[in-house]
Amino acid sequence: MKEKQSLIEQHFLKLLEAHRFREITIKMICEEAHINRSTFYSYFLDKYDLLDRLIDHHLSALNEMSTQFLTGLEEQGDRHELSKAFLKDQFQYIYDNKVFFKTLMTVHPAQNFTQKFIQMLRVNYLRMIENQNIQYAEYFVNYTLGGQFGIIFFWLQNDCPESSEEVADIVYRNILKTNR
Amino acid sequence: MKEKQSLIEQHFLKLLEAHRFREITIKMICEEAHINRSTFYSYFLDKYDLLDRLIDHHLSALNEMSTQFLTGLEEQGDRHELSKAFLKDQFQYIYDNKVFFKTLMTVHPAQNFTQKFIQMLRVNYLRMIENQNIQYAEYFVNYTLGGQFGIIFFWLQNDCPESSEEVADIVYRNILKTNR
Repeated sequence: MKEKQSLIEQHFLKLLEAHRFREITIKMICEEAHINRSTFYSYFLDKYDLLDRLIDHHLSALNEMSTQFLTGLEEQGDRHELSKAFLKDQFQYIYDNKVFFKTLMTVHPAQNFTQKFIQMLRVNYLRMIENQNIQYAEYFVNYTLGGQFGIIFFWLQNDCPESSEEVADIVYRNILKTNR
Repeated sequence: MKEKQSLIEQHFLKLLEAHRFREITIKMICEEAHINRSTFYSYFLDKYDLLDRLIDHHLSALNEMSTQFLTGLEEQGDRHELSKAFLKDQFQYIYDNKVFFKTLMTVHPAQNFTQKFIQMLRVNYLRMIENQNIQYAEYFVNYTLGGQFGIIFFWLQNDCPESSEEVADIVYRNILKTNR
């Protein structure tokens, strides 16, 4: 059962690489995925539901990583090691779901995705620096997440030429230097 | 004559604070500005021309500042002093044209504005670091301009509570620390 849902999602993403969301119809999705309309409707209410659930699915996964990372920090784990591992996992996840992230961020930017994504990053960064004495903390966070977003955008736009370890390292060095 | 053009631009921006661009008509602009349609058409081809020229006008002004700054650097001026002065002027310009920048960046984001703005920042940053030995220069630039964009966005969204000097200083300290 899960397999059919994933099939629908994959073909929807494929369509989204070539078409704007507003041009995509349920009919197109069904034809691409070789399924009946009734099959589509047994998983999703409509195309908005499909997109929203995909977005929520990926943002929840990233958010889960952040939460675990923050918990690790609060339990006094090694800040340096935890940060590097977290960033690496985050970039690996984006890499593994490259079509989704690339399409929604760079090919046909979906505002409800980018806004939610930035909001999630912001909440987690604010939590991360809560107990650190950083001047203009809000601005530091906005600089950091703007910078991180810029790097993810550029990496995806170029089709991820660097490994997730490499990009995680680039981001980490940029953050670290602003943070010492 | 210039006065009428500026009047049209001001009232257009006022409309843009409350309406999406696609909803705004020439009729609305003329009513707001208390002018005849023929007056509008003696300055602009249509509303797209009006928006494009406003965007080009402000981006040219910012680009001019960047060019002067880069020329100063190439003439071996004091890097620290020139950077601070440039950032302060840039933020002062944005502050002086707050309605334009706030509306096009945060209230009703216009993609052709944000893309052009980011592209301009990128070209100038790349030129700025050309002769410096920075590893992953492109990523550094993307981080820096993403960060700067994040700060401008946040500053405008909150209606510029800090002075342009203060914001320039925040940005400068964030860039400098990543650059040493």
